[in-house]
Amino acid sequence: MTEERPYYLPEELLIDTDVARRLIGEFIRGQLEQTGFEKLIIGLSGGIDSALVAYLAVEAIGAPNLLCVMMPYKTSSPESLGDAQAVVGALGCSSRTIDITPLVDGYLETSIAGEPVTNLRRGNLAARSRMMVIYDQSVPWGGLVIGTGNKTEALLGYATHYGDNAFAFDPIGDLYKSQVRQLSEAMGVPDSILNKPPSADLWPGQTDEKEIGLGYEEMDRLLYWMIDRRRTTEQLVEMGFEAKAIERVQTMIAKSEFKRQVPPVAKLTTRTPGVDYLYPRRRPLPESRD
Amino acid sequence: MTEERPYYLPEELLIDTDVARRLIGEFIRGQLEQTGFEKLIIGLSGGIDSALVAYLAVEAIGAPNLLCVMMPYKTSSPESLGDAQAVVGALGCSSRTIDITPLVDGYLETSIAGEPVTNLRRGNLAARSRMMVIYDQSVPWGGLVIGTGNKTEALLGYATHYGDNAFAFDPIGDLYKSQVRQLSEAMGVPDSILNKPPSADLWPGQTDEKEIGLGYEEMDRLLYWMIDRRRTTEQLVEMGFEAKAIERVQTMIAKSEFKRQVPPVAKLTTRTPGVDYLYPRRRPLPESRD
Repeated sequence: MTEERPYYLPEELLIDTDVARRLIGEFIRGQLEQTGFEKLIIGLSGGIDSALVAYLAVEAIGAPNLLCVMMPYKTSSPESLGDAQAVVGALGCSSRTIDITPLVDGYLETSIAGEPVTNLRRGNLAARSRMMVIYDQSVPWGGLVIGTGNKTEALLGYATHYGDNAFAFDPIGDLYKSQVRQLSEAMGVPDSILNKPPSADLWPGQTDEKEIGLGYEEMDRLLYWMIDRRRTTEQLVEMGFEAKAIERVQTMIAKSEFKRQVPPVAKLTTRTPGVDYLYPRRRPLPESRD
Repeated sequence: MTEERPYYLPEELLIDTDVARRLIGEFIRGQLEQTGFEKLIIGLSGGIDSALVAYLAVEAIGAPNLLCVMMPYKTSSPESLGDAQAVVGALGCSSRTIDITPLVDGYLETSIAGEPVTNLRRGNLAARSRMMVIYDQSVPWGGLVIGTGNKTEALLGYATHYGDNAFAFDPIGDLYKSQVRQLSEAMGVPDSILNKPPSADLWPGQTDEKEIGLGYEEMDRLLYWMIDRRRTTEQLVEMGFEAKAIERVQTMIAKSEFKRQVPPVAKLTTRTPGVDYLYPRRRPLPESRD
């Protein structure tokens, strides 16, 4: 059960990777079938989440149907690009590299020159630029944008709204970061990606764990017992989690609810789009597709 | 009941504008209260939707609390900018103009030079650039991004996904275009805006009605009887709507469902963010706000 690993996988989070691969493969093919598409496009950052999704996509629909897009910014680590290229090479997909620096700096230099811009603003601009580029590239490619957000990030709101949380569907949004690692190892994601510390690569030296102040494994355990197993704060403290960490995580979840929802609309009639006029996705009538 | 107007308002769509203003005002103040913000930021296009929302926002929270941002592209009509400035002048808000051309063309010229780019791709790039700019500008301003999409556009999917349908909340998303006109007139939106044909201003000469192939008033009537009053196709034909138009609209609604939803996630556990782990927005605990 517990094999030797270069990192720690909490026991209670271990998954049956064969089952996960099968369910996710069916999900990916089902989403394409439902929308009438055959191809996918992915933004590869060089990190583990997008690497795993690329592996899952290729297993589900084959390498010729996936386009990988690398979108470095001038401050992005060159190693990240190298790691992304290793994934492309291992999978044998088509790929394209588009530097987002002219786009981001086109705004920063001409429109708000001289004003201070924080790392956070710059990071959000980069994330939204990547969304804009990948959606644009999806048109000539003719494929859907596949998402790469994991459950830990989704719950903590650790994503740029309308940036990296903007996609057609997400195959790994119900897997905690630790589970992403376990599945990545099972699928043969390169070691260099498997073993580096998680980072949004928004500025040099940034790592997620420094920002959140708790290692991912402990964070995942806390989220699992809090969300999936519905333990109370008192029970979590009894289990050994720090009261301060629990409160911090509860606040992060509460503060990020808007990122997991369709924005509210002032309700004036009986049926309001996005509020209560909501239907499952349907495949358009065949005679009307264009 | 039916006053003289320079345009046609379908009888069945007439609203009590005083009630709508009150409900929308309460909605705007409620959204701010819930999220702990006091200010709003809006992208003013020069069109009627964003003009009306600016009027509603100022009525709800006062002119000093609204920042209007104009974001022209090089092909945008200069009249649009003039109309937006008329709104700013009439309301007495702060405003800022940011040209998105360096941003959009920074991508087009350096990254995909020589490739054909359709009007639709260029339009989507412009809409997503505006989202990116207004979200960035919302940080130093310290306000929420208020949306300006109406019910007609929301149902038809006539918006750029993660572009103009990306905002914190929308006060007019339950008003059809005809009702936006009626309410705009009641609130004193300038005539030059009230009387021009609806356009996304994505390229010169573009109007929504040309693209959709049906006047807005008839479209609104059709949507109202189809969605709000739940009439069947047969009943709609009996009422005088063309079978072809009905089918076209039904297809547009079905094809755009993804724009009104949180993207699907592969469900692997009992509680999945964005699928069934969904809570109403809560105001974060006071001691944890930053």
